[in-house]
Amino acid sequence: MTDIKKHNKCVIALDAMGGDFAPKSELLGAIEAFESGLDVKIFVLGDEDKLKSFAAENKISLDGLEIIHAPQVIGMHDKPIEAIKSKPDSSLVMGANLVKEKKAHALVSAGNTGAVASVSTLLMGRLKNVERPTIGSFIPSSGKLTYVFDVGAFVDLKPQHLLSYAILASIFTKEMHSINNPSVGLLNVGEENEKGNKQVKETFELLKNSSLNFIGNIEGKDILKGKCNIVICDGFVGNILLKFGESVPDFLKFLLKQHAEKNVFDKIKIGLFRKTLRKALQPLNPDLYGGVPLLGINGITIIGHGSSSPTAVKNMILKAKEMYNKNLTFKLEEALKPYAVK
Amino acid sequence: MTDIKKHNKCVIALDAMGGDFAPKSELLGAIEAFESGLDVKIFVLGDEDKLKSFAAENKISLDGLEIIHAPQVIGMHDKPIEAIKSKPDSSLVMGANLVKEKKAHALVSAGNTGAVASVSTLLMGRLKNVERPTIGSFIPSSGKLTYVFDVGAFVDLKPQHLLSYAILASIFTKEMHSINNPSVGLLNVGEENEKGNKQVKETFELLKNSSLNFIGNIEGKDILKGKCNIVICDGFVGNILLKFGESVPDFLKFLLKQHAEKNVFDKIKIGLFRKTLRKALQPLNPDLYGGVPLLGINGITIIGHGSSSPTAVKNMILKAKEMYNKNLTFKLEEALKPYAVK
Repeated sequence: MTDIKKHNKCVIALDAMGGDFAPKSELLGAIEAFESGLDVKIFVLGDEDKLKSFAAENKISLDGLEIIHAPQVIGMHDKPIEAIKSKPDSSLVMGANLVKEKKAHALVSAGNTGAVASVSTLLMGRLKNVERPTIGSFIPSSGKLTYVFDVGAFVDLKPQHLLSYAILASIFTKEMHSINNPSVGLLNVGEENEKGNKQVKETFELLKNSSLNFIGNIEGKDILKGKCNIVICDGFVGNILLKFGESVPDFLKFLLKQHAEKNVFDKIKIGLFRKTLRKALQPLNPDLYGGVPLLGINGITIIGHGSSSPTAVKNMILKAKEMYNKNLTFKLEEALKPYAVK
Repeated sequence: MTDIKKHNKCVIALDAMGGDFAPKSELLGAIEAFESGLDVKIFVLGDEDKLKSFAAENKISLDGLEIIHAPQVIGMHDKPIEAIKSKPDSSLVMGANLVKEKKAHALVSAGNTGAVASVSTLLMGRLKNVERPTIGSFIPSSGKLTYVFDVGAFVDLKPQHLLSYAILASIFTKEMHSINNPSVGLLNVGEENEKGNKQVKETFELLKNSSLNFIGNIEGKDILKGKCNIVICDGFVGNILLKFGESVPDFLKFLLKQHAEKNVFDKIKIGLFRKTLRKALQPLNPDLYGGVPLLGINGITIIGHGSSSPTAVKNMILKAKEMYNKNLTFKLEEALKPYAVK
């Protein structure tokens, strides 16, 4: 394996066995990234024989990529802590170890979100003053650029954890999207200050007394309106919300189909309109957004949707590179210093 | 006021001052219900002068309705416990008192959900073995008929409360929709049994050991798929989810408009398609579903959306009548007996 120091550019460890369409999406995505002239070095981790025979069968050239043999695979039911010991030669554990050992700058994986987050956290370690790392997701909206933090890294959180999410998310949004003072809203059942459960009421006070651009409570209806840049909630709520949102396009298709079956004239119209609708709903395609970042770890990890396409994988590599170029890990650690947990 | 015993039919107390369009929607809805031959007696509670002058101005006949003068109004910022004392002559408090005093069978209101739920609970009282009443919302889906319980009655709940929600919801769904053994799913961040936060893990065990038709954990993506009849979650999660879902149609309009602005041909197509789309999305209109029931109180309360139309109010009256005819309050109390909280 080539050492990180020999490359004067971003080095990506790509878990080629993670997603639902692995290794196809991963290999094609890596090649897209390489061929687009993106100045990155990509280590592709996976079963070497499988990767090479897949490439040969599909007449894919692996030039420009460096295959690293990782014969083991972490399944949906493997427990991350155990997998680190029992599957040290899995693509995920090897990839996270490459970042830990400073042989790569970033891990990119479309594997099981919980496993990627846990393995990254356990192997790369947490930034100082971070008790719980966080995963945030971009959400298309009709207003401000919007991220929801957290969408499922950890459940059972303390208010202090939610404050640290808001800090990490603010720096991330500022650096990655050039938004100077991103606005932060606390997801709640009403706008009034006194609303919510115990966790949210305490978080409200912490956010109010922070130096963040906190706009107060926001409601479920405000997310797609883009009322603020960063929506803060715990991973339980965020995960349910994100998955609900992702199910909306299929439900729309169902409603259109159901209506078409009842009305023959509208059936024709719906048929003619299908392509336009698909284009109009394109902003809902998660592949465009290059996965979700895991913030608060001592390294860069980008986690993709299980069903990531080659374009999604390419965009994940792009995002990892941008985070590296912007020295984000260092900036996140700096931003957390004033909020040291006593 | 006529006494309940003189009517051999369902008596409804309609809060005519609750909704955003009060008293218009309420009056027109009550008249629609009356004129449709619905065999109910409707008490319309509100400022008598205002109701009569509104009716005169709009040439609405109030025949068949009985106006009860309620000069006070509970605002968005009134605290329910205080409002009961400070605003005894408000339409909401008077309406709930009519049910308490057995002068009406059901309260129907499109007022502030929290206020209607709290005032109903405080005045009518809770059923035996119910610590927390619950509000459930019908959710259109592509699969099974689906309700989400709870959608915002109370936050900070114990697992025992969530179990009682599942029991109340099962009886409600069985009786109102003739579904013999409604399936119950626990909303969680993953399907595996061991997933979730502390509250959900404990609730899982309670549901597993109950006699309900519990199918296990379900995820956010399963709700619109109609994977089960009853989705159980706490009011914090349910409220956020419901409001998020209600914001989807406006966001779709935004996406179509945004696309139309970029593409002139598609703009024309979108214009031609608008009416068809509106019809196809009709199942998303909450006015169709006749408000949400508050279950677990010693009486019937139906709470409408703030923006309820006359049709919504009519459907709320219809639902209240059906709950009365089916003797639901008694059946709910019976069902809870085996689950007495020790």
